[in-house]
Amino acid sequence: MKKVLIANRGEIAVRIIRACRELNLRTVAIYSVADKTALHVQLADEAVCVGAADPQKSYLNINNIVAAAVTTGADAVHPGYGFLSENADFAKSCEEQGLTFIGPAAKVIAQMGDKAAAREIMQAADVPVIPGSPGGFTEQKVGLRLAADVGYPVMLKAAAGGGGKGMRVIESAKQFNHDFQLAQSEAEKSFANGEMYLEKYIDRPRHIEVQIIGDEKGHVLVLGERDCSLQQHHQKMIEEAPSDVLDEATRQQMYATSVNAAKTIHYVGAGTIEFLYAGPGQFYFMEMNTRVQVEHPITELITDQDIVALQLKVAAGEELPEKQAAVHGHALECRVNAQTPGKITGLHLPGGNGVRVDTALYQGYEVPPDYDAMIAKIIVYASDRPTAVAKMKVAIEETVISGIQTNLDFLDELLNAPAYTADDINITFIDDFVATKVGSNA
Amino acid sequence: MKKVLIANRGEIAVRIIRACRELNLRTVAIYSVADKTALHVQLADEAVCVGAADPQKSYLNINNIVAAAVTTGADAVHPGYGFLSENADFAKSCEEQGLTFIGPAAKVIAQMGDKAAAREIMQAADVPVIPGSPGGFTEQKVGLRLAADVGYPVMLKAAAGGGGKGMRVIESAKQFNHDFQLAQSEAEKSFANGEMYLEKYIDRPRHIEVQIIGDEKGHVLVLGERDCSLQQHHQKMIEEAPSDVLDEATRQQMYATSVNAAKTIHYVGAGTIEFLYAGPGQFYFMEMNTRVQVEHPITELITDQDIVALQLKVAAGEELPEKQAAVHGHALECRVNAQTPGKITGLHLPGGNGVRVDTALYQGYEVPPDYDAMIAKIIVYASDRPTAVAKMKVAIEETVISGIQTNLDFLDELLNAPAYTADDINITFIDDFVATKVGSNA
Repeated sequence: MKKVLIANRGEIAVRIIRACRELNLRTVAIYSVADKTALHVQLADEAVCVGAADPQKSYLNINNIVAAAVTTGADAVHPGYGFLSENADFAKSCEEQGLTFIGPAAKVIAQMGDKAAAREIMQAADVPVIPGSPGGFTEQKVGLRLAADVGYPVMLKAAAGGGGKGMRVIESAKQFNHDFQLAQSEAEKSFANGEMYLEKYIDRPRHIEVQIIGDEKGHVLVLGERDCSLQQHHQKMIEEAPSDVLDEATRQQMYATSVNAAKTIHYVGAGTIEFLYAGPGQFYFMEMNTRVQVEHPITELITDQDIVALQLKVAAGEELPEKQAAVHGHALECRVNAQTPGKITGLHLPGGNGVRVDTALYQGYEVPPDYDAMIAKIIVYASDRPTAVAKMKVAIEETVISGIQTNLDFLDELLNAPAYTADDINITFIDDFVATKVGSNA
Repeated sequence: MKKVLIANRGEIAVRIIRACRELNLRTVAIYSVADKTALHVQLADEAVCVGAADPQKSYLNINNIVAAAVTTGADAVHPGYGFLSENADFAKSCEEQGLTFIGPAAKVIAQMGDKAAAREIMQAADVPVIPGSPGGFTEQKVGLRLAADVGYPVMLKAAAGGGGKGMRVIESAKQFNHDFQLAQSEAEKSFANGEMYLEKYIDRPRHIEVQIIGDEKGHVLVLGERDCSLQQHHQKMIEEAPSDVLDEATRQQMYATSVNAAKTIHYVGAGTIEFLYAGPGQFYFMEMNTRVQVEHPITELITDQDIVALQLKVAAGEELPEKQAAVHGHALECRVNAQTPGKITGLHLPGGNGVRVDTALYQGYEVPPDYDAMIAKIIVYASDRPTAVAKMKVAIEETVISGIQTNLDFLDELLNAPAYTADDINITFIDDFVATKVGSNA
């Protein structure tokens, strides 16, 4: 492997370019016409424009991206996260062109990308799952019957995708009839697939996920867990590693379950097994993400592992040790989102001891309106959770991003919430926080 | 302790302000008229102008700084490094005003600041020292006799200070007569003290130093060692931790020696014991720095300790565990120096996995001509030395600082030198590298 095309943009493209350079791999960036001046274009050895600002025409354009890889003589493709990273057709197109797709086999992506199929596979491998529909469905009346079987409340999901798109909590048959078509059309829009799936809704669980990486010899390395309970509209906002709430027995059960899941599907590459955690010994498989996650840096900080470098090495055929990485300290990540597009007229990012920033921002950069709102990840590492929380508050308060609106103030409010400081969190934490705030202002 | 005045500027002032904020301490910055728009002034809760651009009138102005602390109601003073950090009179003035000086007692600063006295104390405590003059001297003819006793080559040093000021390697009596007055006048200019000191010059040793921190109960915590052999004009340029060249027996000897040295002088606070290392079991006390060092971040990265936070805690009376901090991975620091003053018209600093930048730079900032040339520290952490070196190369190559001249290209050349990659370094490495380069260009 000598030259890697990065089929992505923004901070993750920058992250991958840096990892490639550290391993002496040449890099090819792709970009849309909206991203001509983007940082990832400037940092890569070569850059190819693959289409218009509309992601369908550029970052989701399989033909143009594969052609860019072939034309530039790249021998591998790193998909990052989002866009085509969990698109089995893209992985297959790469494979057909003799390009190493940095991720699992197209077949495994397809299996895990189909939420219903994934659930069946996991169930067969003794991975605990939430009671739910045995397969996917597209018709409202079929869903209605399945929801009644499982019992309300239920969680309705897009079978083909993640990231909260097409997801709804449904409390009753009446709500089902009201919300189904909205959710399905969102699924169709996001994943070009209207197949839906539903499962029992668990009240206020934590979202805890296990990072693994597998190699071609069947070794699976466990890189600890992350608590990603702080979500809004099913989008993660603040993540941490490790989870201080897990007792060691439950943690080891989760790891063993994750290794078993990965081995069952002969998983090669970095992957994340997401669980809902309801209490000691009670965790349920939600889904497996077959790509690097946004929040991978917090795992890197507590394990001393470079996940993107490991992805590249595994894709090049290197062998991994089969073990659990030693974990030290505590790491947090805040996702900084742009709430408006526009030009960054002033920028001061935090730095210094225990602070890592992953971003493609620079002063003078124009944040385009076409893509994901996340513009920076502020990540801290300290010896323990209270110290990490104190450090994150200072880092967020120090950050200045002028010219656009961001969620920095909201992040600061969350970090200062007493329940957050006390690690008393769950997946409805942010919604409850917002509701309480609205209530107290009223 | 509630409010800390930071008696410094630049990146170390920013570093200390962040540590204070993380511990919920209020901060007072001081600044010269040249530093009105400096980052440390913007980040502190309060800021006081203490005088003109000339450091003698501002950052070295004990009366004005102590007055600023008293006026703002600060109860502690952090001196940083350089400026008044090793000035016993300043520590004493703080003590007299009831201000906690964050560092050891004035008496200890005075003892260690006098290189000849320090050497005597260390010798009495069984710390190995290099053969040298029994005390300080001011007269050329006295020095000449002492040099003849010790035997050429000798190293001539200012008794009152460090940082390479007033330092000369002297090969012969003839050179002694030629260089003495130059060195002495440099010492007088830098430290207002013309007392000199000399010792046997050891050929091509490594510079290896041990970081310790002591508390008021007499506990001493060892935070590993650093190799700071890469120096030019006696100024460190690239530092690393740990030193891969040390065998474990020598390392433990150095630690034990350092603990013994610290205990002998009842050392409270962060301190560094610098050794010349000539080979397994062969190391000699050079000097002890009674303050935080420029290169402290590499120790923080391999030990998970926050040295500035520990300084603040120890000064507030907290107890330390008496032990050696566990060490993991490998860290490097490059000192980025401005070679011209001027306005920063463009700035891109590296970031991401394993990269830390400590700086007070921002786009639009005007680097004043009045102070130390060091404008940024680029620090990397990785699992081992080769990975850290690869990471540092990428980080340095990515850095863009427009509008002024810097040593970034030179740092990159050093990092790419095969002997550096092979860890075949010593304190003349940079001089030899420059000489070879000049030779090969001729």
